[in-house]
Amino acid sequence: MNESANVRAKCPLVHCITNYVTVNDVANAILAVGASPIMSDEIKDVEDIVSISQALVLNIGTLNERTVASMVAAGKKANSLSIPVIFDPVGAGASRYRCDVTDLLLGEVKFAVIRGNLSEMSYIAGLGSGTKGVDSALTEDDMDPVKVASSVSESFGAVAAITGKIDTVAYKGRIARIHSGCAEMGKITGTGCMLSGVIGAFVGANDDHFEATAAAIAAIGASGEAALKAAKGKGTGTMHMALIDALSRVDDAFIASEGKLSYEG
Amino acid sequence: MNESANVRAKCPLVHCITNYVTVNDVANAILAVGASPIMSDEIKDVEDIVSISQALVLNIGTLNERTVASMVAAGKKANSLSIPVIFDPVGAGASRYRCDVTDLLLGEVKFAVIRGNLSEMSYIAGLGSGTKGVDSALTEDDMDPVKVASSVSESFGAVAAITGKIDTVAYKGRIARIHSGCAEMGKITGTGCMLSGVIGAFVGANDDHFEATAAAIAAIGASGEAALKAAKGKGTGTMHMALIDALSRVDDAFIASEGKLSYEG
Amino acid sequence: MNESANVRAKCPLVHCITNYVTVNDVANAILAVGASPIMSDEIKDVEDIVSISQALVLNIGTLNERTVASMVAAGKKANSLSIPVIFDPVGAGASRYRCDVTDLLLGEVKFAVIRGNLSEMSYIAGLGSGTKGVDSALTEDDMDPVKVASSVSESFGAVAAITGKIDTVAYKGRIARIHSGCAEMGKITGTGCMLSGVIGAFVGANDDHFEATAAAIAAIGASGEAALKAAKGKGTGTMHMALIDALSRVDDAFIASEGKLSYEG
Repeated sequence: MNESANVRAKCPLVHCITNYVTVNDVANAILAVGASPIMSDEIKDVEDIVSISQALVLNIGTLNERTVASMVAAGKKANSLSIPVIFDPVGAGASRYRCDVTDLLLGEVKFAVIRGNLSEMSYIAGLGSGTKGVDSALTEDDMDPVKVASSVSESFGAVAAITGKIDTVAYKGRIARIHSGCAEMGKITGTGCMLSGVIGAFVGANDDHFEATAAAIAAIGASGEAALKAAKGKGTGTMHMALIDALSRVDDAFIASEGKLSYEG
Repeated sequence: MNESANVRAKCPLVHCITNYVTVNDVANAILAVGASPIMSDEIKDVEDIVSISQALVLNIGTLNERTVASMVAAGKKANSLSIPVIFDPVGAGASRYRCDVTDLLLGEVKFAVIRGNLSEMSYIAGLGSGTKGVDSALTEDDMDPVKVASSVSESFGAVAAITGKIDTVAYKGRIARIHSGCAEMGKITGTGCMLSGVIGAFVGANDDHFEATAAAIAAIGASGEAALKAAKGKGTGTMHMALIDALSRVDDAFIASEGKLSYEG
Repeated sequence: MNESANVRAKCPLVHCITNYVTVNDVANAILAVGASPIMSDEIKDVEDIVSISQALVLNIGTLNERTVASMVAAGKKANSLSIPVIFDPVGAGASRYRCDVTDLLLGEVKFAVIRGNLSEMSYIAGLGSGTKGVDSALTEDDMDPVKVASSVSESFGAVAAITGKIDTVAYKGRIARIHSGCAEMGKITGTGCMLSGVIGAFVGANDDHFEATAAAIAAIGASGEAALKAAKGKGTGTMHMALIDALSRVDDAFIASEGKLSYEG
């Protein structure tokens, strides 16, 4: 239970190839939890950059042909150096191209962690999807996230994380559930992208990627609740700022007391 | 007068191909008023994405050859599906290329709404322009915005909106004027881009695009005034955050009481 | 000592070709100090845009082949029009490609100001580098910033600025040192990028580029300290916002009293 302390002590460099909508928040979230972000998506640059990094985050939120090629090159290089790769399949299921790129990346790159919403992860699990743009159209009433996460984890040998009302992490028969967080986080663009960046920070500084992923989700969830409290009566602009504030104060005691994280199995 | 309520009830998906400077604020503004943003600019992706959307916003703030082609493809697809398209001709008149792309888009895509500052709209009206970069160099003393907006509206069969000290919306002989807003909004980058995104949200949820556009402008104007008040003695960073806060509290009563919107003709 | 007043009086247009991670903050920082930003990176657009600008800022934080070509074209055009060009060599030394692009730009474009951290500037000075991603791995104990800055300045005939614990500006035997600023600024992504944008604003409005650069650094340093104070007990989200707030209140009296700027030699 020292995942956060390890991030702050080791300050891992997290290479992100991510979308331009939320990239500033992703960088600030990574900095806030004590790691160091570097964004680079030029194919001539990414292999060198990932080689000096402790984690790589691939996020297809605003994918294009140029950066998808860079994602493949960076992912393969990371694999060859045993640097963990995190995949955020934004909008998988929402368009043919996003499905194709998701399939391509899953085929070419071995991921340490795959994190998405229930629609995206259902697509990856081969169970169809019901996405509304980049938001999930599926809820826990439609499909059991524990089953979906377990299926993705087994198929790809990766930690699989599904975020939603209750978050679920699955790996090799182990299940973590995180009850922190709040619906209002969905009113700030990029809380999922920030989480994937923070998972990169936690996985880059901790050997147990399953527990690191669960701790990262709990950190964001608890921070979201703190941000909601801080923004009371104001609105989503204040909550956005307060979320970064809360992340910058995260430590393991906060995760333990406010993260609402429990392990099953 | 239930434009805002319709946005919050229907939560339209707004597809934006927009500049990378202000894209995060555009997404957060769209979320704040109750709609759902999706950003995608890869030509292999945009037709699928626009097909599941209720509005498309094209903003040429950081245009390039790749994304201009995507704008044309997305715009044509939207037209074929009767999905309303909003055009924000950032910097039209400021460079040869921005003029050419503006002309190209106006020729290839049928717009529901065209919104710009007086310089940009004067260029589109064929009256020359006097732009200073992305800001208008023209004021109401130089040129009558009602005439310019009416001319653009007639030429392109679109709702035409000119924002400035007083905002003007013209369509088929109807004119709306909005007196809310404040000069300090110009000290935050992207208030125009955010407005175009919010117009996308309002037009995506309301059949009368003229009234929806006027209500969206009034919502931003009133929110800007609220943000200025909240930032008193602090500065533009606080005002930026408070603008999103205010947008997240917008409802039709607020627009009616603070929007300073009146119809003429 | 009226560098800030000149910015607010002349409102120079600052053309930036910069990274997509921090571009929004760069634009807001330029606006906050009283100038006007314009971002454009399409090769068909940049020559027209730079021609109406008073300064050009080239930042290679998320460089790619397309935008590097635009940087060269814009830089050459600026040189031909005697418009000052500011170079921010983000990550120079961290990868082969960033080194190559840095060398290319230094060969093709005559810079008025080159600003980086100690690692980046050591690379440019031909003294090797020890960069950790986009952060410096060198400190003043490893290498004397006055020597490095003087070397870069002499080699390229430019004002050379190295930011770090103490900031250093060198030009033609003149040295300025700035002791304001705080380590916490490194926990907000893009304070270096914002500074380069603000240098663009100050250089665009003041003939003495050496003093303008020193004043811009002092303005950011003093603003960072004010932001840290405003964020006490909150976190880096609040500090980020408060930094823009402080920049929007900058004037020459504030720089003189809080900037901790001194000239040597």
